[in-house]
Amino acid sequence: MNATESALVFAERDPGITRSRELTWQDPIPTAAAGATMAGLDYIRAIMDGELPPPPIAVLMRMAPVEVGEGHAIFEGQPGEEHYNPIGVVHGGYASTVLDSAMGCAVHTTLPAGVGYTTLSLEVKFVRPVGRDTGAVRAEAEVLHRGRTQATVEARLTAADSGKLLATGTSTCMIIGSTPPAATNTAA
Amino acid sequence: MNATESALVFAERDPGITRSRELTWQDPIPTAAAGATMAGLDYIRAIMDGELPPPPIAVLMRMAPVEVGEGHAIFEGQPGEEHYNPIGVVHGGYASTVLDSAMGCAVHTTLPAGVGYTTLSLEVKFVRPVGRDTGAVRAEAEVLHRGRTQATVEARLTAADSGKLLATGTSTCMIIGSTPPAATNTAA
Amino acid sequence: MNATESALVFAERDPGITRSRELTWQDPIPTAAAGATMAGLDYIRAIMDGELPPPPIAVLMRMAPVEVGEGHAIFEGQPGEEHYNPIGVVHGGYASTVLDSAMGCAVHTTLPAGVGYTTLSLEVKFVRPVGRDTGAVRAEAEVLHRGRTQATVEARLTAADSGKLLATGTSTCMIIGSTPPAATNTAA
Amino acid sequence: MNATESALVFAERDPGITRSRELTWQDPIPTAAAGATMAGLDYIRAIMDGELPPPPIAVLMRMAPVEVGEGHAIFEGQPGEEHYNPIGVVHGGYASTVLDSAMGCAVHTTLPAGVGYTTLSLEVKFVRPVGRDTGAVRAEAEVLHRGRTQATVEARLTAADSGKLLATGTSTCMIIGSTPPAATNTAA
Repeated sequence: MNATESALVFAERDPGITRSRELTWQDPIPTAAAGATMAGLDYIRAIMDGELPPPPIAVLMRMAPVEVGEGHAIFEGQPGEEHYNPIGVVHGGYASTVLDSAMGCAVHTTLPAGVGYTTLSLEVKFVRPVGRDTGAVRAEAEVLHRGRTQATVEARLTAADSGKLLATGTSTCMIIGSTPPAATNTAA
Repeated sequence: MNATESALVFAERDPGITRSRELTWQDPIPTAAAGATMAGLDYIRAIMDGELPPPPIAVLMRMAPVEVGEGHAIFEGQPGEEHYNPIGVVHGGYASTVLDSAMGCAVHTTLPAGVGYTTLSLEVKFVRPVGRDTGAVRAEAEVLHRGRTQATVEARLTAADSGKLLATGTSTCMIIGSTPPAATNTAA
Repeated sequence: MNATESALVFAERDPGITRSRELTWQDPIPTAAAGATMAGLDYIRAIMDGELPPPPIAVLMRMAPVEVGEGHAIFEGQPGEEHYNPIGVVHGGYASTVLDSAMGCAVHTTLPAGVGYTTLSLEVKFVRPVGRDTGAVRAEAEVLHRGRTQATVEARLTAADSGKLLATGTSTCMIIGSTPPAATNTAA
Repeated sequence: MNATESALVFAERDPGITRSRELTWQDPIPTAAAGATMAGLDYIRAIMDGELPPPPIAVLMRMAPVEVGEGHAIFEGQPGEEHYNPIGVVHGGYASTVLDSAMGCAVHTTLPAGVGYTTLSLEVKFVRPVGRDTGAVRAEAEVLHRGRTQATVEARLTAADSGKLLATGTSTCMIIGSTPPAATNTAA
């Protein structure tokens, strides 16, 4: 058994089964293919309205968009014990994923059909720990700049009940499929 | 039903059940409490050796440490369809979580019993997309600076088979519980 | 002549002298020593009011604070030809320096006498190029979180005339000299 | 006098003249125009060899490239008192500028004539303070990934004498003027 196999076994071995949760999702490829033909805002709304299934990561993270508009998106999530790290709090990957989702969607809302994006970078600052007693969290993302070839976006993650700041995020996305950048355009 | 409840329902509703996966884990709090009394390297090795159960996030992400030493850590993970985002690839949160885990563990290996850490910031750059055909991924993290009050760490995520770079990460951690910083120490 | 000496010579050799500028400043150490005994807001205001000399970097960058209050600071700067990079625009280090100054000052305004800070990280996103025709730039910084041991701050750089966004910044600072963090405080 | 003018006056007023330095440089626009017709590596070498004048920012920061090759660049700099901030050490903008220069040049070395780049983001971690007694500093940058539309690069800043790590940097650049990205390329 090589390292890769042992990693898999490790993660899947029976840890004593004091807790369990069933994940269910649909094949994400047909949904993404449908989305690629739609304006970003229409695609996200179709998911929000249940016309298209949620992406698997949303099931995993118990998160969903709750409000979107051109250039902004709000996600809510329910961090739970299944998201815990070894030092007894919710893993920073949870906040990172919800923030990244809200920021990506905020950029996506600005894209017409046939134009895509890819996230180049994600920066997260962790302000307060998240635990299983934190309750729902809320990520509000806003596009700061939507250029022809890049977008800059920021987000804040708060506790839904108290409004306390938990984490902040920023991201740079590349816009794909629009008019190509010219060599003389140093403005990106 | 308020927005928070709808988010929860949204993530849990039946999406047509074309796929499913059972997560099982143990209450992470007793394990973390045990870890708080151990040197970081001993704690991570106890998890690697199966003496302590893996944290839930490791189950969720199908990841595990495969090699650790003072100041460095290697994680492997198996990204799958359950980690997909709405645009048809593995969510950036997956790479972020594996990189953050490897970097946090690398810092943890430098800590004696009774000293903890908290991650202040995580920065991730996405170089190539990750898909369900990528296979196992490998995150190698190395501490660049371990000061009395802060640590700086970096990591690279590669495809285990091809060695191709998928993403890079950096992180700043605060060391907690060591001798307090003095007012005259501007070196942090 | 070793590499270090050649670097120095290189930067100082006569480049044909089509332009020149005289920098003048005072020894910054006595000023910093005075500042260390003052509340942050008082110190910055003393510089703004001309009771204390500006730091040398402010002369170099033609920048100054124009407005400060608890948790926020606004700087203005005049980027010029002396700040140009090899590809024909103002070097990204200019925006980085002005943003870092505004963010550092915003954190400084929250500190009582005897408490200091050190910047752990700076992240800058460049949105539009800055040139010698851009005119004055304006950096507005706001502290998002001021904890006992860390602060999180963000800033935006705009063209003073048009208000157009030029760059954004975020930063994490460590607070030095306040009550030490306890081992049980994972909130940082 | 408006705020912009007062900022300018502020930075230029006589601070008691205990120190001064004369900056001299050439108009950077013709040099940049020449560079735009050259392969990146040739352009940087022409500056290193004195065939083209250094950019003004290099004079300001007392820095210069000392070694370049495809995908990497080493800069050296001489931080001085003119780079000091209000809290008694060299401003973080100094390390940021030298790191950004080395990283930008490292990317530039990979570009053929007619292809340009623009820096989208810069992230800096400050590990140790830099002072007027630090002596020369050395920034070593290496491109981690050079894609068709983006490049990822990292750098470390060390004290030239002791080799001690002072700061680290990462950056994302956009490649401009090469074959445009296709809508189906999610790899960026």
